[in-house]
Amino acid sequence: MPKALFTDLYELTMAYSYFKRGLNTPAVFDHYVRPPVRYRRFLVFAGLDSALSFLENLRFSQEDLAYLDSLGLFDWHFLDYLEAFRFTGDVWAMDEGEIVYPGEPLFTVEAPRIEAQIVETALLNTLNFETLIASKAARVLLAAGREASVVDFSPRRDHGEDAAMKVARSAYLAGFDGTSNTEAGRRWGIPVVGTMAHSYVMSFPDELTAFRAFAEDHPRPILLIDTYDTMEGLEHAILVAKELEAQGRRLVGVRIDSGDLPELTQKVRARLDEAGLSYVKIFISGDLDEYKIRDFKAAGGVAWGYGVGTRLGTSFDLPAFSGVYKLVWDADGPRIKKSPGKRTLPGKKQVWRQEEGDLVALRPEVHPGRPLLRRVMERGKRLVPAPDLAALRQATREKLFALPEEQRVIDRPQAPTYPVRVSEKLKQLQEGTASHV
Amino acid sequence: MPKALFTDLYELTMAYSYFKRGLNTPAVFDHYVRPPVRYRRFLVFAGLDSALSFLENLRFSQEDLAYLDSLGLFDWHFLDYLEAFRFTGDVWAMDEGEIVYPGEPLFTVEAPRIEAQIVETALLNTLNFETLIASKAARVLLAAGREASVVDFSPRRDHGEDAAMKVARSAYLAGFDGTSNTEAGRRWGIPVVGTMAHSYVMSFPDELTAFRAFAEDHPRPILLIDTYDTMEGLEHAILVAKELEAQGRRLVGVRIDSGDLPELTQKVRARLDEAGLSYVKIFISGDLDEYKIRDFKAAGGVAWGYGVGTRLGTSFDLPAFSGVYKLVWDADGPRIKKSPGKRTLPGKKQVWRQEEGDLVALRPEVHPGRPLLRRVMERGKRLVPAPDLAALRQATREKLFALPEEQRVIDRPQAPTYPVRVSEKLKQLQEGTASHV
Repeated sequence: MPKALFTDLYELTMAYSYFKRGLNTPAVFDHYVRPPVRYRRFLVFAGLDSALSFLENLRFSQEDLAYLDSLGLFDWHFLDYLEAFRFTGDVWAMDEGEIVYPGEPLFTVEAPRIEAQIVETALLNTLNFETLIASKAARVLLAAGREASVVDFSPRRDHGEDAAMKVARSAYLAGFDGTSNTEAGRRWGIPVVGTMAHSYVMSFPDELTAFRAFAEDHPRPILLIDTYDTMEGLEHAILVAKELEAQGRRLVGVRIDSGDLPELTQKVRARLDEAGLSYVKIFISGDLDEYKIRDFKAAGGVAWGYGVGTRLGTSFDLPAFSGVYKLVWDADGPRIKKSPGKRTLPGKKQVWRQEEGDLVALRPEVHPGRPLLRRVMERGKRLVPAPDLAALRQATREKLFALPEEQRVIDRPQAPTYPVRVSEKLKQLQEGTASHV
Repeated sequence: MPKALFTDLYELTMAYSYFKRGLNTPAVFDHYVRPPVRYRRFLVFAGLDSALSFLENLRFSQEDLAYLDSLGLFDWHFLDYLEAFRFTGDVWAMDEGEIVYPGEPLFTVEAPRIEAQIVETALLNTLNFETLIASKAARVLLAAGREASVVDFSPRRDHGEDAAMKVARSAYLAGFDGTSNTEAGRRWGIPVVGTMAHSYVMSFPDELTAFRAFAEDHPRPILLIDTYDTMEGLEHAILVAKELEAQGRRLVGVRIDSGDLPELTQKVRARLDEAGLSYVKIFISGDLDEYKIRDFKAAGGVAWGYGVGTRLGTSFDLPAFSGVYKLVWDADGPRIKKSPGKRTLPGKKQVWRQEEGDLVALRPEVHPGRPLLRRVMERGKRLVPAPDLAALRQATREKLFALPEEQRVIDRPQAPTYPVRVSEKLKQLQEGTASHV
């Protein structure tokens, strides 16, 4: 849960000014991602549960207030206000796991201006990141295909512990099969998976001894065969598989983490089949992402499962996008920012999913299709419980594999186009809104 | 503080096997970054304090043990062992803020094998990330130059809250002047900075009214002048500066966040000087990084300070590197992994900083120069306190600006070379070590 002081200082200096001037009047802020998003034809929205928990539990502690006091920027009236601070606003948002597009509002905060302002940094931090990872994970899944098993191996390269937890959850939400992150398994019931490291093999006098030991100690063994020489490692794994068969058990699989994976997996598959071990699965890992999985398959690589780490957990080809939070309405009416290339869409809005794509309209407008934004928090209270993650995962997978072909393609478009239009009324408002200068 | 279960499941399945087989014998693991690291001519080591705190405080809770039990992979002997688990090993490490290079050991764990194995994931997570960010921040500082003020504006795009906290600390450690992250200010005493957002300007009937209000409410105002039209915004800021002068106060600066920054800052500087406001500083922001700052300056841009966000906090051009943790020694002697392209350096080692560069040698060897690895933990107890961050920051800045010209250059080498050599004795050991296959 983000701390109350996990906020850019300017949120507090602005809030202080609003407080002194009686400007704590209603305001509406939209979170959206500025188009285009390089390398992404669609996004998968995530982070709603974190965001709502944060808003519900936001409190300033005595230490927080003492620290703020020490800065010499605020008077005690304002610190008293913060001591009693509660978020009392409404939130409209997309569902987690929804396929969404840059340019459309994803999360709208309607609250007294100070409340809406103070929560900006923490909301952006979590909504941006979880959506970033769910969107990356979706591409990895599409590359691997519906039949493959894909798991998160990223904790050692993720940006801290909070990142690793959110990667495990966001990837599972998008449709991954599991994670190596044991704490994510404990916390959310995500299936946890693990094989062995090279150091295990190196901790025994020889590879065959290591494999035998692991197979004896683990009910569903997968053996890592590339510590010394992959094809020799495979022969050791085959010996162990035969010994397990004699005990009425089965070797689950072999993992390969280095070398020419398309060629090696073909040779390994052929040798396993020849040895009567067609049930032994091939699992690959090693700096995988959607591009490498696509190329691996195109080169004839054969794998049942993929362990995806660094490039998933850091969204390596695009480690951030321009997720922003902008004032769009206040008591004086719709608001608009006109900085070059950064124009905003004013007013309270709804997004309608239609056959031709999404239509962003003013909230009172009614259009054909399904409205995507729903009210998820009212006067500071959540209206939606934490989701059933396993069910949500299943639903997201269905949506992903049902996307139109042109969105499922794994390529690197610099400036993709999105199926998002703006209603006539909203366009008129954007063109006509006075900017007060 | 990472949770005990924040570990890849395989660390626990391997540990279980070691436990059952009486293989909890002494082992030595090295953390290092595999060379080359694209786009980085040097690294700045960070994360030591987090890593030592983690090792000292690692405990499995009853919930943790109940969850592990539920997986059906472990027996109660092992769960009892985990219940009493304490890290009892020694650690040798570089100092935080040291300039280091890929290929040399940065953090060495000497502990019973199970202890050394279980801590791998959390250690890699924090050492990799904090070093990644300190190394990125160092490049930003070198581009901005010794006289510039450079601050972290990244929280909204960092990968979660833990990432944002570590970014603020690692950037400050490398020599940044401050952060917008208020919680990082509270926790570590890092100077916090903040101006205003566009939404503040938009919350008033017009820009001049907003500027006057902010200047009245903030003791050291910096005004954001690009919400509507930058040069008009500047005129409003000049009016406010003159009004402040009449009260015996001063406008600290103006911030520009969009547009053609080299051209705008020149025009703004000229106009400020013409208005007799040569003391008003220009502060720029907006997707800055070392490349943009270098190009901005080369194009004649004029700025006193830089707010650096997304591209610092995600290490955007390189969001991860291959930081690994490898078994290098155990009771049977030096160990080596021979996977293609991933050979390890066996044995317990020391790194000597010499005029010609760094020399990686076996620990008992004595060489000219300064030994960089020192023992920082003994039998599970820290030998070094948390550092004085402000002093460490000053020392790191000195080191950075004293680097040889060829390391200070801001370019994008795909495979930089590093001043790292391996001693003759270590080479012989690497070539001669039997691989046990």
